[in-house]
Amino acid sequence: MARIAVDAMGGDHAPRSPVAGALLALAELGSEHTVILIGRTRLIQDELNRLEAQKSSGFDSARARVSIVEAPDVIEMTDRPTAAIRGKPHSSMVVGLKLHAADKADAFVSAGNTGAQMASSVFLLKLHHGLTRPAIAAMIPTLKHPVVLVDAGANVDCSAEELVQFARLGSVYAEDILGRPEPSIGLLSNGEESEKGNASVKEAHKLLSHAGLNFVGNVEGRDILTAGSARGSLDVVVCDGFVGNVLLKFYESVPELIFSMLAAAGIGQDVIAKTFRGFDYSDYGGAPLLGVKGVSIISHGSSSPHAIKNAIQVAVRAVESRMNDHIGRRLGHAAVKTA
Amino acid sequence: MARIAVDAMGGDHAPRSPVAGALLALAELGSEHTVILIGRTRLIQDELNRLEAQKSSGFDSARARVSIVEAPDVIEMTDRPTAAIRGKPHSSMVVGLKLHAADKADAFVSAGNTGAQMASSVFLLKLHHGLTRPAIAAMIPTLKHPVVLVDAGANVDCSAEELVQFARLGSVYAEDILGRPEPSIGLLSNGEESEKGNASVKEAHKLLSHAGLNFVGNVEGRDILTAGSARGSLDVVVCDGFVGNVLLKFYESVPELIFSMLAAAGIGQDVIAKTFRGFDYSDYGGAPLLGVKGVSIISHGSSSPHAIKNAIQVAVRAVESRMNDHIGRRLGHAAVKTA
Repeated sequence: MARIAVDAMGGDHAPRSPVAGALLALAELGSEHTVILIGRTRLIQDELNRLEAQKSSGFDSARARVSIVEAPDVIEMTDRPTAAIRGKPHSSMVVGLKLHAADKADAFVSAGNTGAQMASSVFLLKLHHGLTRPAIAAMIPTLKHPVVLVDAGANVDCSAEELVQFARLGSVYAEDILGRPEPSIGLLSNGEESEKGNASVKEAHKLLSHAGLNFVGNVEGRDILTAGSARGSLDVVVCDGFVGNVLLKFYESVPELIFSMLAAAGIGQDVIAKTFRGFDYSDYGGAPLLGVKGVSIISHGSSSPHAIKNAIQVAVRAVESRMNDHIGRRLGHAAVKTA
Repeated sequence: MARIAVDAMGGDHAPRSPVAGALLALAELGSEHTVILIGRTRLIQDELNRLEAQKSSGFDSARARVSIVEAPDVIEMTDRPTAAIRGKPHSSMVVGLKLHAADKADAFVSAGNTGAQMASSVFLLKLHHGLTRPAIAAMIPTLKHPVVLVDAGANVDCSAEELVQFARLGSVYAEDILGRPEPSIGLLSNGEESEKGNASVKEAHKLLSHAGLNFVGNVEGRDILTAGSARGSLDVVVCDGFVGNVLLKFYESVPELIFSMLAAAGIGQDVIAKTFRGFDYSDYGGAPLLGVKGVSIISHGSSSPHAIKNAIQVAVRAVESRMNDHIGRRLGHAAVKTA
């Protein structure tokens, strides 16, 4: 049973996407799960009424498991993260995360201001012992299976120790959310040899070799989409958030290029859609902010209802698999080993 | 008139690819251009004889403009760069670059050990005044036009000043080789805002704003393939060589993914080939090592004759446009301005 708090005011298509996405998710999820929509009650209610009029299948059962918590303020995309937390304590972001921190919700999902979500998640939920920063875990669709990219943008200028923390976080995520036992971890670098990399990466390579993880060594840019390097298959790719952000945004821009080329070549939309099924980014709607004591799922600002639905499902899997406890335990063990 | 020295022993398919590529290039280029093949005379001669037997069109005219310079040694892909220069003075790499340094050739092209080519180019040709490092300029095919990525892998851990040097080098390259007047330059970062970036990037942003270049500001991973950001079109993308290497290798792995998905969907090889014409990496066979006093073109180890042909054509354009002089002058001006 999971109670998911959803930021109804977050994202470019709020409240429509979050509200519709919540109903889609509940229609698919078991009846023990519930959603708490956080935001301006009046707007949320209007949206629910609009959807009720459409009478989509499973609406009534889903609607019965939705509650609303009022939050009059909204953190805008242009708001400065820390200023937003202090200046807007009644925003949907802060109210939702406080609900989670007070154990009145088991997870929080938002398509709002990512910087504000990171800052307020760390501020309100706190970091696990032994961590200096949280990290975003993004899913990269590949030919073989989705690969976890961590950090996908929370941190720039990372130390070697922080890259090792990301590896531990990504490992638990791949195990709990993707069901990969002993996930293999690659360190993204500019060459496979252990002496390749920038200063942090070279040092992290040494540390990862003795970190008690299934570390396969350095991997290159070309190893990601094949989900495998010369040294074996790949579940988690570790990098700093600067590289991760650049790479993820680059990857997200590839389909547009490919689709317009295929369309120009006269290949029909239906064929294109069928061919690239599984590579739709909204299938991987939620990227968890790993390292905080709780479940905080970050969605794209442009999230569709489908993307929000998937983000809620990621949240439910994180709660059910007790990912958060596992991360705490894993980091505790690491701290004991290092001491 | 350009005399191009080609490393006949460099790359996975040597001497076949370099020798065949040289003949292909000469068959297309004006009759004033010549190629000097550097390597084991016997092997090169065998390859020329083999090609002569095939009697391809334009062979005789091209063959008449090829000469051979003996170099008994070969730098292997696994050789350490600096050890190779010192330990193998009679290698095709060192002999070819010495020929260029002595002004007996106007450019050098190799598909051999990239690290060794970088080190020996800097050692034998020297860097332009005002530079601390050379940079690799790679071409990224996009929907609009190829974009220059600099640095594509020569340097990790770059300072802000070095990123500015890369911007100057990339600017001259785009102007001289791609014929783009006042090329627009973007700084790759994890957000468009000037305060986004790692420490070097944030500092470089400030410096680039007063560098006398057509600087459009930070660009994101998603702006590369569209060759444009919110602030306008894009000719040059500046980043450190760690990020550049990861991104370039990732990009090079995309076609394999797309092609196998399209093939699995039953789309024919001919349609695929036609659709993605212009996105064949070997069309952009040569990445110049910018910053050295001369023209040193780096080709993929896996280069086909077609790729080597293109690398030679890039070399000829660099020589004819006097790119090297322009870089020297541009850096001289920058030094005066800064002083």
